[in-house]
Amino acid sequence: MNGKMKAVVKHHRGEGAQLQVVPIPDVKDDEVLIKVKATSICGTDVHIYNWDEWSASRVHPPYVFGHEFSGEIVETGKKVTNFKQGDYVSAETHLICGSCPQCLTGQYHICENTKIIGVDTQGCFAEYVALPAANLWRNPENMPEDIASVQEPMGNAVHTVLNGDVAGKSVTVIGCGPIGLMAVGVAKAAGASQVIAMDLNSYRLSLAAKMGATSTINAGELNPVEQARKLTGGHGVDVVCEMSGHPIAMDQGFKMITNGGRVSILSLPVHPVTLDVTNDIVFKGITVQGITGRKMYETWQQVSRLLDSGQVDVSPIITHHFKLEEFEKGFKLMNEGKCGKVVLHP
Amino acid sequence: MNGKMKAVVKHHRGEGAQLQVVPIPDVKDDEVLIKVKATSICGTDVHIYNWDEWSASRVHPPYVFGHEFSGEIVETGKKVTNFKQGDYVSAETHLICGSCPQCLTGQYHICENTKIIGVDTQGCFAEYVALPAANLWRNPENMPEDIASVQEPMGNAVHTVLNGDVAGKSVTVIGCGPIGLMAVGVAKAAGASQVIAMDLNSYRLSLAAKMGATSTINAGELNPVEQARKLTGGHGVDVVCEMSGHPIAMDQGFKMITNGGRVSILSLPVHPVTLDVTNDIVFKGITVQGITGRKMYETWQQVSRLLDSGQVDVSPIITHHFKLEEFEKGFKLMNEGKCGKVVLHP
Amino acid sequence: MNGKMKAVVKHHRGEGAQLQVVPIPDVKDDEVLIKVKATSICGTDVHIYNWDEWSASRVHPPYVFGHEFSGEIVETGKKVTNFKQGDYVSAETHLICGSCPQCLTGQYHICENTKIIGVDTQGCFAEYVALPAANLWRNPENMPEDIASVQEPMGNAVHTVLNGDVAGKSVTVIGCGPIGLMAVGVAKAAGASQVIAMDLNSYRLSLAAKMGATSTINAGELNPVEQARKLTGGHGVDVVCEMSGHPIAMDQGFKMITNGGRVSILSLPVHPVTLDVTNDIVFKGITVQGITGRKMYETWQQVSRLLDSGQVDVSPIITHHFKLEEFEKGFKLMNEGKCGKVVLHP
Amino acid sequence: MNGKMKAVVKHHRGEGAQLQVVPIPDVKDDEVLIKVKATSICGTDVHIYNWDEWSASRVHPPYVFGHEFSGEIVETGKKVTNFKQGDYVSAETHLICGSCPQCLTGQYHICENTKIIGVDTQGCFAEYVALPAANLWRNPENMPEDIASVQEPMGNAVHTVLNGDVAGKSVTVIGCGPIGLMAVGVAKAAGASQVIAMDLNSYRLSLAAKMGATSTINAGELNPVEQARKLTGGHGVDVVCEMSGHPIAMDQGFKMITNGGRVSILSLPVHPVTLDVTNDIVFKGITVQGITGRKMYETWQQVSRLLDSGQVDVSPIITHHFKLEEFEKGFKLMNEGKCGKVVLHP
Repeated sequence: MNGKMKAVVKHHRGEGAQLQVVPIPDVKDDEVLIKVKATSICGTDVHIYNWDEWSASRVHPPYVFGHEFSGEIVETGKKVTNFKQGDYVSAETHLICGSCPQCLTGQYHICENTKIIGVDTQGCFAEYVALPAANLWRNPENMPEDIASVQEPMGNAVHTVLNGDVAGKSVTVIGCGPIGLMAVGVAKAAGASQVIAMDLNSYRLSLAAKMGATSTINAGELNPVEQARKLTGGHGVDVVCEMSGHPIAMDQGFKMITNGGRVSILSLPVHPVTLDVTNDIVFKGITVQGITGRKMYETWQQVSRLLDSGQVDVSPIITHHFKLEEFEKGFKLMNEGKCGKVVLHP
Repeated sequence: MNGKMKAVVKHHRGEGAQLQVVPIPDVKDDEVLIKVKATSICGTDVHIYNWDEWSASRVHPPYVFGHEFSGEIVETGKKVTNFKQGDYVSAETHLICGSCPQCLTGQYHICENTKIIGVDTQGCFAEYVALPAANLWRNPENMPEDIASVQEPMGNAVHTVLNGDVAGKSVTVIGCGPIGLMAVGVAKAAGASQVIAMDLNSYRLSLAAKMGATSTINAGELNPVEQARKLTGGHGVDVVCEMSGHPIAMDQGFKMITNGGRVSILSLPVHPVTLDVTNDIVFKGITVQGITGRKMYETWQQVSRLLDSGQVDVSPIITHHFKLEEFEKGFKLMNEGKCGKVVLHP
Repeated sequence: MNGKMKAVVKHHRGEGAQLQVVPIPDVKDDEVLIKVKATSICGTDVHIYNWDEWSASRVHPPYVFGHEFSGEIVETGKKVTNFKQGDYVSAETHLICGSCPQCLTGQYHICENTKIIGVDTQGCFAEYVALPAANLWRNPENMPEDIASVQEPMGNAVHTVLNGDVAGKSVTVIGCGPIGLMAVGVAKAAGASQVIAMDLNSYRLSLAAKMGATSTINAGELNPVEQARKLTGGHGVDVVCEMSGHPIAMDQGFKMITNGGRVSILSLPVHPVTLDVTNDIVFKGITVQGITGRKMYETWQQVSRLLDSGQVDVSPIITHHFKLEEFEKGFKLMNEGKCGKVVLHP
Repeated sequence: MNGKMKAVVKHHRGEGAQLQVVPIPDVKDDEVLIKVKATSICGTDVHIYNWDEWSASRVHPPYVFGHEFSGEIVETGKKVTNFKQGDYVSAETHLICGSCPQCLTGQYHICENTKIIGVDTQGCFAEYVALPAANLWRNPENMPEDIASVQEPMGNAVHTVLNGDVAGKSVTVIGCGPIGLMAVGVAKAAGASQVIAMDLNSYRLSLAAKMGATSTINAGELNPVEQARKLTGGHGVDVVCEMSGHPIAMDQGFKMITNGGRVSILSLPVHPVTLDVTNDIVFKGITVQGITGRKMYETWQQVSRLLDSGQVDVSPIITHHFKLEEFEKGFKLMNEGKCGKVVLHP
């Protein structure tokens, strides 16, 4: 498809981004062109927008960023057989090599050579995006466009929470950004008997309560470890989902976990973290899991079904909608922490 | 405690039972005496009441039967340290040997030498029951007595449903007696995206809908295998909980399961069952699980927490309450299939 | 590559096969052409050769059959990037659809739409075979050609045995054809404390002993269930690998399993099987697994490493080598049961 | 049994211990008296002997220490039914409460209120020891006394190595003290394709080679991370068993693990450890397990069977035998690191 489109371009190696008119991308034989209906802002996009140390070391402006979206296929490459024009899709953002030991054993989400859409390649903050058919996920027809767009981060939440038993267990979610809030909803939907949400931001804790948290603890006001113990008869919680990335909060997670519990870490602390391995990991006999991406595509199936069945309702988390052109309003809110998920509409 | 009490006694080797006044049982050093607050009728009790082939080969009248209950400890044996007078308890009904390979490896629920309270020993259809402290489960203080009484069968449902992943999966429950109905509620609470209830009895299917079934199928009116496929895009269901004991229904369960699915069998078909092992088990690569009892006491913890947190509400299933003296009304309803769970109050 | 080649062709809808000279197959864009170095005869090939009921319903002569092999790539299609001329490979024989729920969740071995190389497509009893690059497995350079050829059936053995814990457990292998014999070796290598081999054929039992069986039981001479119980202190075995397909032997497997044990079925009984579900599955609380194919490619990795490390030595099982032209000698031996694995060399 | 016995007594709050003549201990109703045949020195005993910070905070001299042994029952308490005079036994050293959430769910090895024999109670460096029958493990009759004595530490090795899949995987054991050496043997017996042993002590590495290590790496001479990557085609190892307790070695373990791998930590680093959580745990998607004690008694069953079947031979690790009176020779060797396991014979 020839022509031009509007896109949010990371235009230079510095703060900010620009709305530009750029060519609609070409479609390779194994790709499809998608008309973007909704695209949501991820914390990673904020890092790129703000141009932090990590961005400077990873991305190569000028390029279109953004990786969460839903849209409709408008063109398919010659080799594409599983999808056709008109299909309603979202996409997995990990581009994998297919030949490392992890890929060969079906662990695509931890491919040694992972590239990420919108980080290492052209993204979806635009009217159109071209993507490999192999990365597409077919959405239920009646799923709202904004809900479909946030499936990718919800996949992180599902991957974290459901990476072990939850039903009848006490679950703490540390860090209630959008993914943490989704994790609260997933834990509740999966039968957790207690879902304890922790954050320093009372706005986010109020969203956590809407998502089904049975207790919310403002870690700036109360001691999280003491509170978690109090809520569990002194024994500690069964599962900790660490989504804050703060070394102190992470350490508290290890302190509040019960013997034999599970600590699943999705967050990416900027610096190394000091842990009391002997008392908090070994003597307790716990399991610690690093969580990255989404199982391809087991997690997507879970996400799609949890949303489509109504078992999880993420609409309370989608707090703001803007036109694509108004992207700067979205990044401002994200930087201020005064929002859940922000969705842009091209 | 000396004295007499009322009890429902299986008095002879034949149909029926009698209300009798019998001595309050003595308490051994490792036992406690419990004042029964609520006691519910199990399908097994109906078999004993009706005096079928199995009962004739297993139980030894005269004795007090019944095994589901909640109550208050009124006396403790000399060696009992974990429980005291006034404690509010229910009990696991499997009495285990502690020295077979299964017991030594923590698989108490499949102890080679299991005896069952109320079947092989004196039961709880009475004002008082004496039981080993090792079999007690402490109830939350505010749990209603009838709910606490049905934790034992709910344990069967929980053990069956949660013996594998459920969140985001399609689950069929075949056979909607009380345990099947509980299984419906557990599957829903654990995040199943579809809970398909099947039975021949429309009264029970209406209870299944109350427990959260997303579809109810009367197997006398519609083809269950076709319906299950239709509801799952032609692929079949992910999990089958077989609770009917009917060979035809069981075979249908194997026909409706998707490749890689799980069939968990709690029911006890009277005769051997003929299965298409090649096409329904091997080519499909499925897992079949025999489920017996409740994991001791992991399942009890799950049951207690799912009920206490409100994640599962079994009150719609408890359809009838009678005085202990009116036990025959309960057995009549059970034989007619016109009830959920029947609770007797001594 | 133009030209002609020798191939063993299933030439008609009846018994037997013919050596013919046929065109070397063309290579599609995503395929490679392989010069076959060694190709081994599978039980499935014998069914096709003998033209039994199953073959008549499934395969379409004339075509080249055979699916186990090792060889060297001599030509690659335009789109092939992971493999190059000279690479030493074998191949997974399941051709998958990539878009059914099983494929989407990484369970390729139970793809709803599986086709099998050499059954549904042209096979490898030939000088050359053309195959999709996606199905290739790279062999260690120093792996002997005949060993590399039997990795596919060894994958069945590995998938069966290692589909649960084995170390320190008692394992019975029922049916000591080549895959059963490989299962004996895998169980021993994986730390089984007892490996009990059962068959009616004493020649095969002698091979089982060479593969590390700690006991061999001729089911025609001794009662297998009694023997298994005697060898396990009366408790029964922990794991049964059913590879005989005989309904009586399968039933015996269910009778000899201990409470909580695992029965993994790879065999394909011709008729439905009658099982005592209540006593042998439910009360025992066992797990029954249908095993099909090989996990793609987790199982291949395990196979390759177990062979390459010397942990399993399958050379005692490879009892006969023939030129491709002598294929009829191989089929005769297979039909007589007087061999382990027969390897043909084009 | 009245009378006196020889015992190694930790007599004061300082370095060393004394051989004393003390009363043979009384037997409570649920205990047995055991005549000790062999008792082995654990690293924990060395800490107590040397009187380090941990010992000073935990143990209360004067008392008999030691906790690894084998022996024969010479007297049984009134309530003991599963064991009788003449039985050949060893013992689990964790004394558990039986009523915490972990005990109630069968996770006895991580009981919240664990006490340890020979640390918190009277131990077995003596002619006789009195122990609860509940802690006994029955030994195979023909198991040598020294082998039976070292089952307890071998249980740590088995618990660590077998807490995940091993067959066909690459396993690194970091730290080749006696338990590390046992772990090498267990990994080899369980089908690991590579067993890489690492230590600074070349004597211990030579024992590791005897136990079946496929590579030994002296971490003082070569870079362990580089070596591990070189041995695994650059991908890293699948499983790390951390048994050194050194923060640098532990960090190296996290650096050499492959994406999706397992790090099982049995060691007890004295100080908190700093880890690169983002790069070494989260992005890699690995699992970290704290390992404590032995699963009661699943691990004991595994240990007993691996030894009794000959799958693991620990005799190369038992390097020294002394009379009980010569205990100081044993402690000297242990402090010098010039031994494997030291066994004392009362």
